[in-house]
Amino acid sequence: MPQDKTKSPRPKAATPKGFRDYFGAEVTERKAMLDRIAEIYHLHGFEPLESSAVETVEALGKFLPDVDRPNAGVFAWQEEAVPGGGAGDWLALRYDLTAPLARVAAQYRNDLPTPYRRYAMGPVWRNEKPGPGRFRQFYQCDADTVGSASVAADAEICAMLAGALEAVGIARGDYLVRINNRKVLNGVLEAAGVAGGDKADDVLRQIDKFDKVGEDGVRALLTTGRKDSSGAEIEGVGLSDEQAEPVLRFLTSRGTDNSMTLMNLRSAVGPSAIGAEGVEELAQIAALLRGLGVGEDRAIIDPSVVRGLGYYTGPVFEAELTFEILDEKGRKRQFGSVAGGGRYDGLVERFTGQKVPATGVSIGVDRLLAALQAKGLTGAEERGPVVVTVMDRDRMAEYHAMAAELRAAGIRAEVYLGNPKNFGNQLKYADKRSAPIAIIQGGDEAARGIVQLKDLILGAKLAAEVSHEEWKSQPAQAEAPRGDLVAAVREMLARW
Amino acid sequence: MPQDKTKSPRPKAATPKGFRDYFGAEVTERKAMLDRIAEIYHLHGFEPLESSAVETVEALGKFLPDVDRPNAGVFAWQEEAVPGGGAGDWLALRYDLTAPLARVAAQYRNDLPTPYRRYAMGPVWRNEKPGPGRFRQFYQCDADTVGSASVAADAEICAMLAGALEAVGIARGDYLVRINNRKVLNGVLEAAGVAGGDKADDVLRQIDKFDKVGEDGVRALLTTGRKDSSGAEIEGVGLSDEQAEPVLRFLTSRGTDNSMTLMNLRSAVGPSAIGAEGVEELAQIAALLRGLGVGEDRAIIDPSVVRGLGYYTGPVFEAELTFEILDEKGRKRQFGSVAGGGRYDGLVERFTGQKVPATGVSIGVDRLLAALQAKGLTGAEERGPVVVTVMDRDRMAEYHAMAAELRAAGIRAEVYLGNPKNFGNQLKYADKRSAPIAIIQGGDEAARGIVQLKDLILGAKLAAEVSHEEWKSQPAQAEAPRGDLVAAVREMLARW
Repeated sequence: MPQDKTKSPRPKAATPKGFRDYFGAEVTERKAMLDRIAEIYHLHGFEPLESSAVETVEALGKFLPDVDRPNAGVFAWQEEAVPGGGAGDWLALRYDLTAPLARVAAQYRNDLPTPYRRYAMGPVWRNEKPGPGRFRQFYQCDADTVGSASVAADAEICAMLAGALEAVGIARGDYLVRINNRKVLNGVLEAAGVAGGDKADDVLRQIDKFDKVGEDGVRALLTTGRKDSSGAEIEGVGLSDEQAEPVLRFLTSRGTDNSMTLMNLRSAVGPSAIGAEGVEELAQIAALLRGLGVGEDRAIIDPSVVRGLGYYTGPVFEAELTFEILDEKGRKRQFGSVAGGGRYDGLVERFTGQKVPATGVSIGVDRLLAALQAKGLTGAEERGPVVVTVMDRDRMAEYHAMAAELRAAGIRAEVYLGNPKNFGNQLKYADKRSAPIAIIQGGDEAARGIVQLKDLILGAKLAAEVSHEEWKSQPAQAEAPRGDLVAAVREMLARW
Repeated sequence: MPQDKTKSPRPKAATPKGFRDYFGAEVTERKAMLDRIAEIYHLHGFEPLESSAVETVEALGKFLPDVDRPNAGVFAWQEEAVPGGGAGDWLALRYDLTAPLARVAAQYRNDLPTPYRRYAMGPVWRNEKPGPGRFRQFYQCDADTVGSASVAADAEICAMLAGALEAVGIARGDYLVRINNRKVLNGVLEAAGVAGGDKADDVLRQIDKFDKVGEDGVRALLTTGRKDSSGAEIEGVGLSDEQAEPVLRFLTSRGTDNSMTLMNLRSAVGPSAIGAEGVEELAQIAALLRGLGVGEDRAIIDPSVVRGLGYYTGPVFEAELTFEILDEKGRKRQFGSVAGGGRYDGLVERFTGQKVPATGVSIGVDRLLAALQAKGLTGAEERGPVVVTVMDRDRMAEYHAMAAELRAAGIRAEVYLGNPKNFGNQLKYADKRSAPIAIIQGGDEAARGIVQLKDLILGAKLAAEVSHEEWKSQPAQAEAPRGDLVAAVREMLARW
């Protein structure tokens, strides 16, 4: 790309704000995690889908091209006008993997199997204000079943989610898939006599406060109001005690096991038909999970799951990591949610007018990866290649022959390709590459038919802790006949 | 995404023009190919880099934001203005993986090892007119070494390219890496006395015609001109016979082996210093390849490689598949080029002002995948999951238990999740899923403690070729005790 330097000043070498690059282990660790998840999805009959990163703004829905602010939420641009035609289409980068699935399910509805199980993994883009740890390009990892109204599809996804978490290394007992049902909540609102009315939203708002204010607090808030900790009077929703009762029964319904929780929920929804349907669905899911071999230590009915309930139409679920980590301030806290999903309607309806039931889950890729890192599950810091140093420029072909021999034996290896004049720089390079071993052969060694092997891991340990006798007893440098190079490297690698 | 239907008409379910989706095996076959290539790159000490898909137009270079036509060549858009600041940056989707590497090498020049070996695989975007088989989003797969002036870096990449092609299944003898050097061509132009002059481009144009018009034809074109097949007079470049001689020697320099080719090239460049340097580099590369164990049946010096010579500054190379395929018209032709690269300068210079030597290769992902498909190397059409059919809605948990048992044994399996009323639809679904086996258990079978296994592969063969005795002797349906489900499925799968 030759440039006329008199015209353009030097460009700034920087990613755009809110974007980042991923190097080395950052790429391979995420890939290893997603590969393991994909294996589990594949085993369950899910097919990969890699949809176009670019969609028409029209197909993405949600966002309409606004001449003044076409970029609200998404990165969007307008195609050039078609000659003789109208204005060009507005295109945008996908902001999630669900909107493209909706488009694909509609576009290929005559070719895809019904139901269509698919998984998708890849970057999505959000035109939002970036912040610390918040990027405008990030990975999503979704699995959805489109075209099945059966709660067996929901149960399957919950079981598969548990399997995926175990496949990436989260131990049984360190996670829990919690399952609820939007219909149960609707039933509770019906039982309280507020369903569809003005007070429904008020009731939902108080339900959300249960974790903070407890049963008595919510009872007060639903009825006549309460004083908060500062003594200020908070107005109540104005329900009667009888109306508040189903809500409170719902909030305290989690029992010691699924069958007790289901019994409590039946009581909470009372005569509500939709509520009874919701509880019945949860009972079916519980039975299906037993069939799938997923015990209540892995997936459980839990009425406290309220995430995004407004968006969903039936079962909802969330996977939570239950082990503790230390937060920024050194305090213990549970790691928390790493995946969530549920049943939703209207996926394909926007395009075709036909209702198509669907259910799915999305794993928070960055959060799950952070969890694996916090648990030391991404493997030890990856070791770099064996570095063959260059003592004698004229024998480059021989150094490359050494590297080729090591690779043929499956050992990662490279020849130093910088300026070989300063040997210290070669060792600094090997250090930067986290090389376990440096191979050295000068003219003297070549004449004697040998190579020197420098154990850089041991060398680093010796440098850091010179007094350590155990390490001192091992030589940090060894020599081997040239013909035994591979065996000698293998032996030295086996030390660590 | 609830929408007010009275406001917006139904959106069109379609990818934008020039974009496409990838389904099932299209995703997994490409992934398997790239995974194998990545393994080879990793073994050679290359590190993965996943740069941001979005760059500032400024960093991408080449394309400058043009208020009237900001999208020429790239998909670009302008960030919103910073409040109180100037206009927002122009951002764009990357159009290749080299421009982002340049930006990364400059941005992180103090942190990256020198030399920096990296590979990158991922989509790039081009705002071009789409055509048949030409998409505006496609994969690239690059490996580059930044910061080494040594031709050992070039030789290594040629050897690695050969290794990568073999790793994905291209047999030795079915490919050839051909290597040339831009400096040799410059030397030839010098020897002809036209280097840097007006006639250099004319000479290059005639060189490109060598394949069509042969040695005598080019001699005529370089000197006094010739008549073409229609009898029309074509003007010559006007060189003397002495001037034309080095060019012709260059064009006919490929010998039976590297040493003969190098001898011929030395003669062609005559007294040109740059030419001699180029030949010497090729001789070094030949020696390094021998050291790397790469014979001339895999990589060879070939002066006819002229691809993109203008862009490169030293060695250039190209990988060609030498086996024949049938083209659209049923004629045999060589598959042709699947990868190319070479040495280039000015990579980081745009950003920092410092020259940084670099060399790299790009594999044409779609072309290589097409080659593997043409050779039947992408594996048989992937088999679908075992489908457990649903005869009795009340026993869904039991059907799911069967699928879970099969998965626990590593067998891909799923339960039919559509409406189970019509059993024919279940078998049609199994067929669409390329299921090898359908599992059937009605109330009768359940009472007897057995399952039925339907061999759908055999069934399809029987339907297609009813007379085939060999297949008729095998039962397309078998029954097995429920407890032997996994063993019975394994046995039936082993038939094929």
